[in-house]
Amino acid sequence: MPGTVLDFWFDFASTYSYPAAMRIGPLAHAADITIRFRPFLLGPIFKAQGWDTSPFNVYPAKGRNMWRDLERLCADLSLPFQRPDPFPQNSLLAARTALAVPDGVTGDFCRAVFRAEFGMGRRIDEVATIGVILTHLKVDVPRILDLAQSEMIKTLLRQQTDEAQRVGLFGAPSFVTPDGELFWGNDRLERALAWATQAR
Amino acid sequence: MPGTVLDFWFDFASTYSYPAAMRIGPLAHAADITIRFRPFLLGPIFKAQGWDTSPFNVYPAKGRNMWRDLERLCADLSLPFQRPDPFPQNSLLAARTALAVPDGVTGDFCRAVFRAEFGMGRRIDEVATIGVILTHLKVDVPRILDLAQSEMIKTLLRQQTDEAQRVGLFGAPSFVTPDGELFWGNDRLERALAWATQAR
Repeated sequence: MPGTVLDFWFDFASTYSYPAAMRIGPLAHAADITIRFRPFLLGPIFKAQGWDTSPFNVYPAKGRNMWRDLERLCADLSLPFQRPDPFPQNSLLAARTALAVPDGVTGDFCRAVFRAEFGMGRRIDEVATIGVILTHLKVDVPRILDLAQSEMIKTLLRQQTDEAQRVGLFGAPSFVTPDGELFWGNDRLERALAWATQAR
Repeated sequence: MPGTVLDFWFDFASTYSYPAAMRIGPLAHAADITIRFRPFLLGPIFKAQGWDTSPFNVYPAKGRNMWRDLERLCADLSLPFQRPDPFPQNSLLAARTALAVPDGVTGDFCRAVFRAEFGMGRRIDEVATIGVILTHLKVDVPRILDLAQSEMIKTLLRQQTDEAQRVGLFGAPSFVTPDGELFWGNDRLERALAWATQAR
């Protein structure tokens, strides 16, 4: 039986992508599904909807509830929580670096970025933050940081973001099954895994 | 022990209020919590956010996914599903009638309206639809329909909608616990009940 792959689309600045990223590993393992981490940029997608920042900033009542909800959710999951400042964080460097690290550490890198940002309130647009994470992953830090700024990786991230738009993504996290079913939101992670399992 | 009450705020035009309304009874019963059905109008709240229709119409990609998601959700719950046309339905008559029926049949009335609208694709702005529902509930139909158009009920609905805004509601369904905790969305129903239970 060939391995079933679920695409996990996220923006590092996306709040609910944090619990999704922290939960997806064990759940996917139990379902025998391989997760493809697909960072992309929500900015162009939000811009197409007329927003120049996160909808949680555009709509303050919704934003207030989101922060409270995320705090409750993290408490339930025993995840550390700190509200990053500013919000949203600029996720360009983190997204490029996620595409530059060796495949075997992608998941660990992504989780570490989310933990730094939403668990410790760190800035993820700073090379210092990303550098510390890479050091812990025991990769060649200067080489990865160089690669993250290369034309190849810049193009790759643009292509990922273009593909996200083509697939019809409008927010993050989103999950896309091999048969093209789109599930939006951390709350749909289990359902997306179940769908991918049934479609197998 | 005095009964714990959870406020269930909804607009009859709201898509995810349908599964919430159909699920809330047994879950609340099991948790020994009394549900207060609180219909209100999302229109003024959406207008304050700059929308003159449902956000699912304002943002088409989000809307497409919502319909697909609702269809999947209803299948999982063995609930009938039909997309109402037009969407959103004008929910004024249904909301006023919900405030006019005797307390003991409020839940049944609300469920019947949601079932007619999203399970059978009926128009809920027509007296015919509401009349059939009332007939099944064995209430005095002409009297209730009269009462629904009275100044008292019109004022009551305006007050409910004002209170919804004061409480900080920005969408539906929403659940508010006795200690003022706000949970938004059908996906938060279980969590809201658990919170209300703990706070007791």
